[in-house]
Amino acid sequence: MNTSAIQPTRIQKEESADQRWARFKPISNGDQYVESLRNRDLTVYLFGEVVENPVDHPIIRPSINALRMTYELAISEPELASAWSPLIDAQVNRFLHIAESPQDLVMKNRMQRRMGQLTGTCFQRCAGLDTISVLHSITYDIDQTHGTTYHQRYLEFLKQAQRNNIIIGAGMTDPKGDRGKRPTEQHDPDLFMHVTKRTQDGLYVTGAKAHMTGGLNSHWICVMPTMNMLAEDKDYAVIGMVPADAHGMTYVYGRQSCDTRALEEGDIDKGNATFGGQEVLVMFDNVFIPWDHVLMDGEYEFTQELVTRFTAYHRASYVCKTGLGDVMVGAAAAIAEYNGADKASHVRDKLVEMTHLNETIYSSGIASSHEAKPLASGIYMNDTMLANICKHNVTRFPYEISRLAQDLAGGLMVTLPSQADFESEATGALLKKYFKGRHDVTTEERTRILRLIENMTLGRNAVGYLTESMHGAGSPQAQRVQINRAMEIERKKSLAKNLAGIIATDRQNPS
Amino acid sequence: MNTSAIQPTRIQKEESADQRWARFKPISNGDQYVESLRNRDLTVYLFGEVVENPVDHPIIRPSINALRMTYELAISEPELASAWSPLIDAQVNRFLHIAESPQDLVMKNRMQRRMGQLTGTCFQRCAGLDTISVLHSITYDIDQTHGTTYHQRYLEFLKQAQRNNIIIGAGMTDPKGDRGKRPTEQHDPDLFMHVTKRTQDGLYVTGAKAHMTGGLNSHWICVMPTMNMLAEDKDYAVIGMVPADAHGMTYVYGRQSCDTRALEEGDIDKGNATFGGQEVLVMFDNVFIPWDHVLMDGEYEFTQELVTRFTAYHRASYVCKTGLGDVMVGAAAAIAEYNGADKASHVRDKLVEMTHLNETIYSSGIASSHEAKPLASGIYMNDTMLANICKHNVTRFPYEISRLAQDLAGGLMVTLPSQADFESEATGALLKKYFKGRHDVTTEERTRILRLIENMTLGRNAVGYLTESMHGAGSPQAQRVQINRAMEIERKKSLAKNLAGIIATDRQNPS
Amino acid sequence: MNTSAIQPTRIQKEESADQRWARFKPISNGDQYVESLRNRDLTVYLFGEVVENPVDHPIIRPSINALRMTYELAISEPELASAWSPLIDAQVNRFLHIAESPQDLVMKNRMQRRMGQLTGTCFQRCAGLDTISVLHSITYDIDQTHGTTYHQRYLEFLKQAQRNNIIIGAGMTDPKGDRGKRPTEQHDPDLFMHVTKRTQDGLYVTGAKAHMTGGLNSHWICVMPTMNMLAEDKDYAVIGMVPADAHGMTYVYGRQSCDTRALEEGDIDKGNATFGGQEVLVMFDNVFIPWDHVLMDGEYEFTQELVTRFTAYHRASYVCKTGLGDVMVGAAAAIAEYNGADKASHVRDKLVEMTHLNETIYSSGIASSHEAKPLASGIYMNDTMLANICKHNVTRFPYEISRLAQDLAGGLMVTLPSQADFESEATGALLKKYFKGRHDVTTEERTRILRLIENMTLGRNAVGYLTESMHGAGSPQAQRVQINRAMEIERKKSLAKNLAGIIATDRQNPS
Amino acid sequence: MNTSAIQPTRIQKEESADQRWARFKPISNGDQYVESLRNRDLTVYLFGEVVENPVDHPIIRPSINALRMTYELAISEPELASAWSPLIDAQVNRFLHIAESPQDLVMKNRMQRRMGQLTGTCFQRCAGLDTISVLHSITYDIDQTHGTTYHQRYLEFLKQAQRNNIIIGAGMTDPKGDRGKRPTEQHDPDLFMHVTKRTQDGLYVTGAKAHMTGGLNSHWICVMPTMNMLAEDKDYAVIGMVPADAHGMTYVYGRQSCDTRALEEGDIDKGNATFGGQEVLVMFDNVFIPWDHVLMDGEYEFTQELVTRFTAYHRASYVCKTGLGDVMVGAAAAIAEYNGADKASHVRDKLVEMTHLNETIYSSGIASSHEAKPLASGIYMNDTMLANICKHNVTRFPYEISRLAQDLAGGLMVTLPSQADFESEATGALLKKYFKGRHDVTTEERTRILRLIENMTLGRNAVGYLTESMHGAGSPQAQRVQINRAMEIERKKSLAKNLAGIIATDRQNPS
Repeated sequence: MNTSAIQPTRIQKEESADQRWARFKPISNGDQYVESLRNRDLTVYLFGEVVENPVDHPIIRPSINALRMTYELAISEPELASAWSPLIDAQVNRFLHIAESPQDLVMKNRMQRRMGQLTGTCFQRCAGLDTISVLHSITYDIDQTHGTTYHQRYLEFLKQAQRNNIIIGAGMTDPKGDRGKRPTEQHDPDLFMHVTKRTQDGLYVTGAKAHMTGGLNSHWICVMPTMNMLAEDKDYAVIGMVPADAHGMTYVYGRQSCDTRALEEGDIDKGNATFGGQEVLVMFDNVFIPWDHVLMDGEYEFTQELVTRFTAYHRASYVCKTGLGDVMVGAAAAIAEYNGADKASHVRDKLVEMTHLNETIYSSGIASSHEAKPLASGIYMNDTMLANICKHNVTRFPYEISRLAQDLAGGLMVTLPSQADFESEATGALLKKYFKGRHDVTTEERTRILRLIENMTLGRNAVGYLTESMHGAGSPQAQRVQINRAMEIERKKSLAKNLAGIIATDRQNPS
Repeated sequence: MNTSAIQPTRIQKEESADQRWARFKPISNGDQYVESLRNRDLTVYLFGEVVENPVDHPIIRPSINALRMTYELAISEPELASAWSPLIDAQVNRFLHIAESPQDLVMKNRMQRRMGQLTGTCFQRCAGLDTISVLHSITYDIDQTHGTTYHQRYLEFLKQAQRNNIIIGAGMTDPKGDRGKRPTEQHDPDLFMHVTKRTQDGLYVTGAKAHMTGGLNSHWICVMPTMNMLAEDKDYAVIGMVPADAHGMTYVYGRQSCDTRALEEGDIDKGNATFGGQEVLVMFDNVFIPWDHVLMDGEYEFTQELVTRFTAYHRASYVCKTGLGDVMVGAAAAIAEYNGADKASHVRDKLVEMTHLNETIYSSGIASSHEAKPLASGIYMNDTMLANICKHNVTRFPYEISRLAQDLAGGLMVTLPSQADFESEATGALLKKYFKGRHDVTTEERTRILRLIENMTLGRNAVGYLTESMHGAGSPQAQRVQINRAMEIERKKSLAKNLAGIIATDRQNPS
Repeated sequence: MNTSAIQPTRIQKEESADQRWARFKPISNGDQYVESLRNRDLTVYLFGEVVENPVDHPIIRPSINALRMTYELAISEPELASAWSPLIDAQVNRFLHIAESPQDLVMKNRMQRRMGQLTGTCFQRCAGLDTISVLHSITYDIDQTHGTTYHQRYLEFLKQAQRNNIIIGAGMTDPKGDRGKRPTEQHDPDLFMHVTKRTQDGLYVTGAKAHMTGGLNSHWICVMPTMNMLAEDKDYAVIGMVPADAHGMTYVYGRQSCDTRALEEGDIDKGNATFGGQEVLVMFDNVFIPWDHVLMDGEYEFTQELVTRFTAYHRASYVCKTGLGDVMVGAAAAIAEYNGADKASHVRDKLVEMTHLNETIYSSGIASSHEAKPLASGIYMNDTMLANICKHNVTRFPYEISRLAQDLAGGLMVTLPSQADFESEATGALLKKYFKGRHDVTTEERTRILRLIENMTLGRNAVGYLTESMHGAGSPQAQRVQINRAMEIERKKSLAKNLAGIIATDRQNPS
Repeated sequence: MNTSAIQPTRIQKEESADQRWARFKPISNGDQYVESLRNRDLTVYLFGEVVENPVDHPIIRPSINALRMTYELAISEPELASAWSPLIDAQVNRFLHIAESPQDLVMKNRMQRRMGQLTGTCFQRCAGLDTISVLHSITYDIDQTHGTTYHQRYLEFLKQAQRNNIIIGAGMTDPKGDRGKRPTEQHDPDLFMHVTKRTQDGLYVTGAKAHMTGGLNSHWICVMPTMNMLAEDKDYAVIGMVPADAHGMTYVYGRQSCDTRALEEGDIDKGNATFGGQEVLVMFDNVFIPWDHVLMDGEYEFTQELVTRFTAYHRASYVCKTGLGDVMVGAAAAIAEYNGADKASHVRDKLVEMTHLNETIYSSGIASSHEAKPLASGIYMNDTMLANICKHNVTRFPYEISRLAQDLAGGLMVTLPSQADFESEATGALLKKYFKGRHDVTTEERTRILRLIENMTLGRNAVGYLTESMHGAGSPQAQRVQINRAMEIERKKSLAKNLAGIIATDRQNPS
């Protein structure tokens, strides 16, 4: 199709890697991060309109606030959210730190849980960290096989990223079109991102990356293959780093449940007025990547491993949802107290059950980190089996935690009038009269907690707490496929046969 | 508090029962129903504003459409949705029919499932039917004890209701204030509805009824006690029939997740553009009820039984959710097909699981109807234990069905751009390009099904499918209390002791 | 293989149908039933030995006691366990009654639950009832197609069965050999039962029927195909009635967990000393069936329907497990009381949960009966979908009920010393001293209830309560296949598409 | 009561601590362990009889074999099952090693899983390890408070234990009598173990320890309080080390499901012929403990902490069940293969589900070890919350794994004839004929795997895999109480309130 109406053809010389970096300056706190997003020449669409200033758009801003908190946490809890990088011999944000030990991965998990507690939403910076993590070993391995220099390029990029303290978005998920067909078989080649041209300076890619978490809030986007590629897919086996404001990129903002409440006056009905997640579609129309920022170009045989390792990191990153789970437990306990029901044994029992499920998720996440092993490049990677176990529990337990929170909330959560009604002269006093519970709790407090539970189980942040828990980092069946592969069924059969007296392959029985 | 600012004092003579009925005329189809709601003098607030014309308000209309369907179904499937009433010797809408047999209750359940299939939401007419059902026997029983004439009044009302084919709303749930206190102990007497004055013509009530299903779409509202009342609560033990537009009533509309999408252009993002549910707060400020429409005044000792019988009917009414479940199964199957994944064994297996859970709910609902027994007044009532079982399953399985539907939907459900983006010149063609799946399915079809699943699992109709399934007709713990009462634990202990050889209380062992 | 060593070749004329019946006389109570099993010329093996007198064998007798109770119940609760048979114009045991209405099937379910309550085990008579039920319509339908006279033969057999009040065993499950192969492809033709010879008097079958419930306690065994047969399988498409003591039959008794406790002295450690289940392997070596007792011979095209209808009846029969569930609830409540823990809220809550699950099973069972429809032959058959739902719940909930019972029992259930230790001079007084709980409960009472729970969750009757609940009437996957077939997925898709605004196939939307 | 008939009064001088140790010699392999159990003067009862030679008793021996494996594993996999002890400057069995790091606790978990894989049962040595672990810190803490010398005594004991490589049994669970009464309120003071006399040489205790794991297979038993003691319970606050053959001790063997199959000929029907668990009741009648082996005498205020720390160690020890889970997965996969069903997608899916649940347990166990923290005495202790999470999952998932294994096994598991029938001349050939599945799998192999699954889900090792998983180290409610205590509900409430805009207690919101 002809997309020229949107993106004009470029004739000037393309920007070099250095030129691209020259546009950045180090970010040292949240405010600087927010500022860094201003005045970029991005093409963003939302509700069919161009968004001139995304930073101050009421629907978009909460997602920026969530990322902003990653900068603030590094200041307020530096041991948790920053780390010493030998690469630049300086303290860096942990979201840009290469895991040098299992403990580094555990600290990452703790930071993720804390971020979840503080924002109650998807704070969008994990996928970028998991991307730079997987590229550390993959570029190294390609170089070992092919004598390329991807790893050095990668390290140079990473140093700049650490120095400038930037956000990296993970551009992984291609639209895929007909699931029954390979990239080259699609009726439209753009349904998987691919190289359209190679020049002396670099290469050009066309395609799209779907439901990209925090895409618009990123400074750089790493495009990489979404699945295993074969020899005929060489042009699709491409990894590159692209500034979010590169020529040829178009963003379309994804809708979320209750998104337009952000446009309303008042902060109560929003539930969580400050923080939200973000998913965008990013389309690339012959976007240029200088060679210094190309980290794979045709080495298709490493794509399978790329995906497997990425999911090893990323599926464990879903411990972030235990931070949201902590908020859910707290919100459920608060509303029970406000309703005067917190002493009931069934209420207490439900809070315990919510906690049990939440900590079970946490266990499997940190266990996969504690059991991490080093790869050839020196970076540590989560235990694959346990990372899949973690994510698979995340596809189940938040739904049950959410169900229990709704149980404790009571039906009022979905029948409350609007904030405007509470504040109107005509009805305000009446509503306060009739929605009064315990004498020491204001109707507003009660309403705010109910709206928070609504936000996290039906509304804007339910997207992150539920549906994204289901599909992010791979849908449930993807984990089952991995567990199936890793479960060593023959070894377990032989354990059973040994005890059943069939054949003693594993160990001699005592006489 | 002084509410006089809102409702002016009335000095004219109060309307009699006959005068009230005289304002109605028989409704014979959906259009007439919609018309019947126009030009009523209701005081309705939404988003802090008075709603002048609720019928045509985009947020309210879908809830009217759902009720409208109860009229249409009686025409298109009369055997299902109407019945012969010996009271007026005519065919009446089944939602106004007194159960003369278990089969009548089963037919009611089938109609409810069908309504759920056709609307995908709460169609708001069940509570009214369950109200007239419970009043049939309760008025009869009071009369037997006290020599009152409530049952005759009731029958007269019901004849009018059947002839005029009206909607009755169930005004049951008082705000309750501090849950640890009885009605007379509350700091504000109005937190439970009560009689404020009795005259020769009738009585006056003040109070409020919270999260009243379809309140605004009703013609009459039955106010009745929400829980067991004691001797000191006599003034709170009141049942009466009130026209929805009686003097002294104020409505405040409850918010729902994604409610304002109804205000947007386009029908796609709404998910289910036609149908929705409705919950309102109704406040009563000295509302008059003529004696002919008073069905209890002080006979507090019948309130416990009133609640128990009402829940026996109403908890079985939640089979309606199996109709929504059918839609969920269908939507999940459709999106799997659109995604090209419908042949995968795990997809098929999830559809089977959804169906299994849905039919399990249906089983317990119709079982409680089939096992119905007649009461003294001649009406049949659902088996109490099984009705509670039905509702208790409804507090669990729709959540799991919803989780599985989200699993099959894929993450796109929560990252799709808006309809406006799909239709914009700038991005429309690009979005259609990139969100294209199978060649024989349009992007719009795919989007529409995803929006429907969003609507039912996160959006407006998730309120009805999930949260209302949790709390409507009593929260889970309420069912557990009833199951605990009805489970005949001593009898079961004796069965066990008999088999364990402890004591043979139940039956002789063979030698 | 040559099996002549076990069964001598017969040369005399074969017994006619009349001669076979002449050996029976009407049974009118439990004692007569037990007597009717004596002095039969059965070849029975158990622990490698011939059992000369099965009736008085301590392992076998409890299974006979369970069937005996079906006779006693018809006397003590005749409205429940007997029915009027128009066939012989007399009251008959309900286990031999042809369902003339949905109510008949519901009464059967109630009787099954009651039998479960009274025996705490599998009472083995359901499969026979479900067999005569399915044959009523299948023989009728074959006759309609082929002009055969199977239905008349069937009715004659049934009259005799009712008059003599006999037990019929269902010989359905062939060994099947390699599951990947059809009957005619097996390396041994006997792995599916088949006709080996046809004479003027009748036909001869060879093969085996595996895990036959109550086989040894039956008077007659009905052999029938276990699955769909094709044209090439004609000799395998055979149904016939065989007396349990016909020439050529050999029984091998199946082991059960803890079976040999029945051989120990004392009744405590048995848990349920009186009642048990029975599964046997029955092998047929050229067993003769006179034509009058042949009900299918080659009409393979009816085998699929035979199986489907049989499972419709039989899967609903698993409501019997709710009777065992009642015993489990009672036992759990009793031990909680004996332990002094019955007031704890979590104990009460677990009893409620057990009851909820148990009644959910019951709901789906009786719902499938209430929704029964008549077949061409006039008999009523359970609703197929709901019968499968019932059985599918039975493959899950008894395990959870059992788990909860073990929770309430405490660990003592699996560490208690033997009855002999409790009764020994050396240790008896010490054990009573140390296992004393509440002062008003004897150590023996406590022990007996614990042994009953052991019996039903690990021991002999766990076979019936758990594993048989899993596999009887078809393993879980078999129900899923049926649910998949019956779930009308296209219809449900169109409901969803209609609401999503895709195509209005099901009903017009209101404007 | 008078127990003098069993234990004669002693008049000679009591054995000193040194004398007691002098009876031991170092054990360096499994055979020496078995020998070490011979010729001890134990009073053991089983089935009402004295067991003269427990070591060779067919019911007891499998439990000894399981412990024997702990010695063998230290030889075959020394890095896993042994560790360097700085206390004696030598390599010791890991079951006697004091955790000096989180990694030590993780290695312990791995060893436990491996032991579970190799034995398929409870190998009985964990509670002893967890006992010496908790005493390390508790004795230290008492000394710090009271200036006592318990910790030095403890270290001396531990050195001897390590040098001699002995088994220590944990004597913790008192009979407790009426649960509603404190120790001093019981009608019989012996229902909790207590000091009866103190002399210059030591003290004497009387009481009993119920369901003591591997009691009879231990060399020493540590008696300690089972719950929090108060000031008035001082004589009950006693910890001491007792040789298993001390004067005054009487053992009564606990029954297990199918225990007597161990007495039958043939190894097939046993399911797991080699290994089993053991629970005994141990009664103490004025048993002497020299002061050197007394580790608490009256310091009641440390009993609460004793129990809490013990459960922190012991609840994580239940990862051993993941070893049994591995066997279950393997057995289920093997029988599916033997049945020819291993390619079915639902079979594969059930194996994945079993693995997922099993690894989830493992995650929470090792996570609690990885997150261990040092105590004042220098020993590391598992994270309390996660150890409780681990155990709580163990009270659920093995039941579901077991249910799925029974699903895959098929009904034959509970209807198979006995080994004797398979081997009898009369029926052997017929049974092999009819129970033949795939041509390349013998009937015996199929039978053996089925018997193993029976063993672990209904039989002898179901005691360890299921019921002990429920109650060992505390019943489910005990974990819920701990989770409730540890869940920091106020902190979580403040997280929720912060996001809801109620009060910002946890962190400033960005503007």
